[in-house]
Amino acid sequence: MQSTADPLPGWNDGKAKAAILDFVAAAIREGGPGYVAPAERIAVFDNDGTLWCEFPLQVQVFFALAEVKRLAQQDPSLLQKPAFKAFLAGDVKTLMSLPKKDVFEPAFATHAGMTVEEFHANAWRWLRQAEHPKLGRRFIANSYVPQRELLDYLRTSGFKTYIVTGGGVEFVRVVAGQLYGIPPEQVIGSSTRMKLETGPEGMVLRKLPELGSFDDRDEKVVNIALHLGRRPVFAFGNSDGDLAMLRYTLGGQGPRMAWYLHHDDAEREFAYDRDFRLSAFNEGLDHAAEYGIGLVSMKNDWNRVFAEEGDGRA
Amino acid sequence: MQSTADPLPGWNDGKAKAAILDFVAAAIREGGPGYVAPAERIAVFDNDGTLWCEFPLQVQVFFALAEVKRLAQQDPSLLQKPAFKAFLAGDVKTLMSLPKKDVFEPAFATHAGMTVEEFHANAWRWLRQAEHPKLGRRFIANSYVPQRELLDYLRTSGFKTYIVTGGGVEFVRVVAGQLYGIPPEQVIGSSTRMKLETGPEGMVLRKLPELGSFDDRDEKVVNIALHLGRRPVFAFGNSDGDLAMLRYTLGGQGPRMAWYLHHDDAEREFAYDRDFRLSAFNEGLDHAAEYGIGLVSMKNDWNRVFAEEGDGRA
Repeated sequence: MQSTADPLPGWNDGKAKAAILDFVAAAIREGGPGYVAPAERIAVFDNDGTLWCEFPLQVQVFFALAEVKRLAQQDPSLLQKPAFKAFLAGDVKTLMSLPKKDVFEPAFATHAGMTVEEFHANAWRWLRQAEHPKLGRRFIANSYVPQRELLDYLRTSGFKTYIVTGGGVEFVRVVAGQLYGIPPEQVIGSSTRMKLETGPEGMVLRKLPELGSFDDRDEKVVNIALHLGRRPVFAFGNSDGDLAMLRYTLGGQGPRMAWYLHHDDAEREFAYDRDFRLSAFNEGLDHAAEYGIGLVSMKNDWNRVFAEEGDGRA
Repeated sequence: MQSTADPLPGWNDGKAKAAILDFVAAAIREGGPGYVAPAERIAVFDNDGTLWCEFPLQVQVFFALAEVKRLAQQDPSLLQKPAFKAFLAGDVKTLMSLPKKDVFEPAFATHAGMTVEEFHANAWRWLRQAEHPKLGRRFIANSYVPQRELLDYLRTSGFKTYIVTGGGVEFVRVVAGQLYGIPPEQVIGSSTRMKLETGPEGMVLRKLPELGSFDDRDEKVVNIALHLGRRPVFAFGNSDGDLAMLRYTLGGQGPRMAWYLHHDDAEREFAYDRDFRLSAFNEGLDHAAEYGIGLVSMKNDWNRVFAEEGDGRA
């Protein structure tokens, strides 16, 4: 299983990299104290801020910004909601001051009335070309190279890799295969309710303007139980929204590992996380060590961040 | 991939077996017209009546019969509900006359207040020894050998096999590995709501006395979309509760196949399905051909039903 080539070339030699390499090497060493049976090798990753850039707003919020005008034209009463109003005004400052759930509401509303297939096509039409306002390249160029290496390394070592995201499950599925090698059935996320309809083209699922699950904090653990039916052994997050999932992962029997990515890299990405209103990182940052969660510094632990680093950070 | 040995020895030579063998052989023949890309090889199976015996009541209903006394002692007001009353009286006739959802309600209630781990232990304590009232052997001996062969055959051919059951997801997960080789993360089912609690032994999930999803009819399709994010290409059911799932499976592009198991074998199992109040098979039976769903006759298409056939059918 183990080759002589470094499976994590984007990671600097240091405590974090060494701990990950040791954990995985032990997990596949049958008979050893760190062995994890193949069926139990489940790794869960948050998406926004853990696998790709979420600053100054999550990608799906930018998508909603682009979509929400259409909705407000259909239903002007939506403008009474602060998040919708701020969306339409492009008022990022107000959006950043609102609770995460409020800000995500217009994002989920942009699903409503479409079939799942229509939503996918619509989201991809935007994702294939939309650009990050500060990084000067497409959003889909902003996944983290060291994390992609880690996902590959885990899979090569027999782990099933899952995304457990506060973002919409259908939105993330549009890019999960291409960006992370993760199939749709291994993406767990927030969801709107759906309705089965039988029309001229057969059965289709139509998305309703009603939140099914907001996959954040405790709800991430509930959804892991619902979808996976067992505790992961490896988890990675970047905010207080991931803390329950990380602690739940560490709470089982046998070898376990959980990490926080700390956004402290103002040069190559952004240094923002503790005070990020849309997904704060306070309790987790203050208590990581106490809970047994490792801290990965983007600045110090990664020698690369994005695949296209030179493309012009604004 | 294909060996000379018959992968389905429990199936009699005939139309159904030939069609399955042809479909799977074509699915793995790259470049051929029936080819299905590995990632798309998703097969879904109902459980009750499709993978194991569900007559005269679903196994989980028998489990609830054994458990419900404890609940009624805690909350006597439950006795005002006809299903609870019939449960306590062991009144199978009344239970068989009630709608499926009502009958399953006490079953879901038997989850409430336990942690997921406690529920598993409790269910297994019962399942490991409880006997079917008519077949004269344990419930867990009543899975269908030809279906286990089919699941194995599909997996050998690169299919991911899923259970999509009206039964409780946690209940079915207790036996899915042992009986069908299906891991917990490939079981989709009805569910109660859960709550994350942090106690002295760390984080646990406690089941609430509140139905989350009743995974029957249209809801099976909704849950497939939520969990899998794509249409299966192969589906197997046995009642009208599976019809939406079978039609949804057939409604996609490319090669697809869907089957109904017809319970017409009064000798080796039971001939009961059309009028089975707890899970009727009327529309599906009448319109299977029109919808393109194949019909498997237990009596004619299977040369075995159970692993321990000789053990004494009452």
